[in-house]
Amino acid sequence: MKNKFKELSGSILAPAGFMAGAVFCDIKRLGTGKGSNKGRKRDLALIVSETPATVAGMFTTNQVCAAPVKVCVERVKKGVAQVVVVNSGNANACTGKQGLADAREMAALAEHALNLSPGRALVASTGRIGVAMPMDNVRAGITAAAAGLGSTPDCADHAVEAIMTSDTRPKQIAVEFKLGGRTARIGGICKGAGMIQPGMSATGKRPAALPNGGLHATMLGFITTDAAVNAKVLQATLNEAVANSFNRITVDGDMSTNDTVLVLANGLAGNEKFKLRSAECEIFQAALNHVCLELAKKIVRDGEGVHRVVTVRVNGAKTIRDADAAARAVANSPLVKTSWHGGDPNWGRIIDAVGYSPATVVEEKIDIGYSAPGSGKILWSLKRGQPTKATFKELCAAVAPKEFELHIHLNLGKAAAVMYAADLTEEYVDFNKGDVTDASSLGG
Amino acid sequence: MKNKFKELSGSILAPAGFMAGAVFCDIKRLGTGKGSNKGRKRDLALIVSETPATVAGMFTTNQVCAAPVKVCVERVKKGVAQVVVVNSGNANACTGKQGLADAREMAALAEHALNLSPGRALVASTGRIGVAMPMDNVRAGITAAAAGLGSTPDCADHAVEAIMTSDTRPKQIAVEFKLGGRTARIGGICKGAGMIQPGMSATGKRPAALPNGGLHATMLGFITTDAAVNAKVLQATLNEAVANSFNRITVDGDMSTNDTVLVLANGLAGNEKFKLRSAECEIFQAALNHVCLELAKKIVRDGEGVHRVVTVRVNGAKTIRDADAAARAVANSPLVKTSWHGGDPNWGRIIDAVGYSPATVVEEKIDIGYSAPGSGKILWSLKRGQPTKATFKELCAAVAPKEFELHIHLNLGKAAAVMYAADLTEEYVDFNKGDVTDASSLGG
Repeated sequence: MKNKFKELSGSILAPAGFMAGAVFCDIKRLGTGKGSNKGRKRDLALIVSETPATVAGMFTTNQVCAAPVKVCVERVKKGVAQVVVVNSGNANACTGKQGLADAREMAALAEHALNLSPGRALVASTGRIGVAMPMDNVRAGITAAAAGLGSTPDCADHAVEAIMTSDTRPKQIAVEFKLGGRTARIGGICKGAGMIQPGMSATGKRPAALPNGGLHATMLGFITTDAAVNAKVLQATLNEAVANSFNRITVDGDMSTNDTVLVLANGLAGNEKFKLRSAECEIFQAALNHVCLELAKKIVRDGEGVHRVVTVRVNGAKTIRDADAAARAVANSPLVKTSWHGGDPNWGRIIDAVGYSPATVVEEKIDIGYSAPGSGKILWSLKRGQPTKATFKELCAAVAPKEFELHIHLNLGKAAAVMYAADLTEEYVDFNKGDVTDASSLGG
Repeated sequence: MKNKFKELSGSILAPAGFMAGAVFCDIKRLGTGKGSNKGRKRDLALIVSETPATVAGMFTTNQVCAAPVKVCVERVKKGVAQVVVVNSGNANACTGKQGLADAREMAALAEHALNLSPGRALVASTGRIGVAMPMDNVRAGITAAAAGLGSTPDCADHAVEAIMTSDTRPKQIAVEFKLGGRTARIGGICKGAGMIQPGMSATGKRPAALPNGGLHATMLGFITTDAAVNAKVLQATLNEAVANSFNRITVDGDMSTNDTVLVLANGLAGNEKFKLRSAECEIFQAALNHVCLELAKKIVRDGEGVHRVVTVRVNGAKTIRDADAAARAVANSPLVKTSWHGGDPNWGRIIDAVGYSPATVVEEKIDIGYSAPGSGKILWSLKRGQPTKATFKELCAAVAPKEFELHIHLNLGKAAAVMYAADLTEEYVDFNKGDVTDASSLGG
């Protein structure tokens, strides 16, 4: 799949007709005096399409959800947008009516700064929970960001910087592909390192098909494309792409109040709009899937304190729900995750987690094995519930690499699920135990 | 409640007519030569009633369950037993038909050594998963333990030692109370430190009322009483006691393959047997509840790497299932647990976990506060979804003690649930990442 798309630099500004601007405006109220802002990480960005774009979004299904999520859910329904205003340092969550008013004001300020019609701006936030937005700083920030819009690769880099929180590195991608005889591009950036097990839906409501409680960072993702895609098709393709990428990752099993993925399609590639399930739609879907999956994997690899990334593949479940439940139980088990950190194959903990998951399983039918990423060559530690003759040394070698795949075959049916998971390390605990000398450790 | 019962020493041997014997028989095959076993921790015990006793049990609902659990589930149904044979160092889990034959042989060996009728012995194991029982060592151990039976407090201490794995201290209790004009006693021992979120039922099957996936150490608990209780009443009172104690604790959210609680009632107190819901039954229930809850709390306090113990109290849920789900989501959230370790009140992470739990909640109705254990004086950090005026310093002081209570009021109904939970520390990770230089790290 990877080879089907030409990789480009410039991420969200690789597609035609997009601009970005990002500034440091002291969202965390660090108290930096005027003139001394140099060297501070940017904390507010505008991502702008030159022309009105169709829009689609996916949002946290956490029942406690931040004000910007509420505003986006309303606005994305209309299917048209032109700018996203995003900040890090404050999640604008648990901020009540004032928070909602602040999120709406952020949108209005962006629309005003860019001379857009009302309703054309979307908002996203990440950072501390339960603290009022510093609206004076935000107002100055939006004005400054709008004044500095550009479409050079540097502008994209600055936008990525502005959305980072505990991320240690920027996460971005862009691809080019042929669509209806034209050249189209999709670009994306994202952030997220802890409080990561997104479970997003288009409405922010839990769909019945999603396993209750099996969903749980703030992750933010912003995707731009110059493909012409109508809003309904854009939402449908985003649903599928997110279901197989961002909604399949876990760092710590905690689902954030702010998870948001937005895609803007401005049509400047000049292709004809296509229908769902058309050949063009499949090409676009494949490109969007690739962008979302690569971004999602970057989040797991840069997860807080993460040393090892493990792809958990469950096959042979009775239902997709069972496959998902078994994969999530294993991917979120503290004992399994600490064993991965230790380079310990510990299939005993793995089968234990499979057994207590909500999935229907039969001990005597379970196979467990390990492989290199993308390799079909699986070293089995357990076959039909019984240890194989693989030696402990061989099993240790299989789980020693920084990335490996874990295969769990339930042998009860045909349903499968995958989770992109991380180990649990002392650094994760140390980072998250907080610094109680500083109230800024409040929130997620 | 605590003051209603006179505490005794001697734990499981405090009730009349019980004996215990425990030895080191090298279950882990450490390879210690003959004569050099001094100083080795005991690893096999017999707990014996002088007369046939009624019996009740609760067993892991993990679908992957160990051979001794399968044997006990069958035998406890008959309602009569006289000896429990228990070992640490090997869980006899994922050991197939041989494992089941070995568990049955352990029972038969105990019956033979004590000259009991077939079917009078119960079996329990904890330790490595997926390794065959060292039956030559087990045979020698059972013979030696039977030859050394006694009823002194030392004998009880030796039995506790034999069931310990990663436990740093023995866990035991005994109480005395009046029952139908006679003096009755209940004693108990237990073990467990990691892989702790028991979800036990009398049949080892998941009852519909238990939240799917919300259940998750090996914990073993052995309770003796000289009260006369018929088997049906004994099982009913044990169900209630375990539901409010062992099934309400979590160290790491992982439910073991071997969790077992057994109670033997030999009737030597001479009381008349009582009916369910009789006044005598309530007295017995209260005493059994006290024994189980005190033992369960000892497990959390001695959990792997645990620094802080937090009682999570959810009130005002629509249903008990919702209350339970919200309490478990908070009690098992890595971000909440690391914040407890850091002495950080972090209500943002708490409301986040409540929001993603399967429980129905409304952000604008949620109250979150902290108190000293057993104190009605709650310091609220959040009222109706909004931060109170409590200062960060005040909140930090509330969560600084080694034990505190967390109060979450959903204000939607009248259902309540409690979880006894632990923080997540670097020590937990370090302990559980395993030592891959040694295959004995396999299993749970």
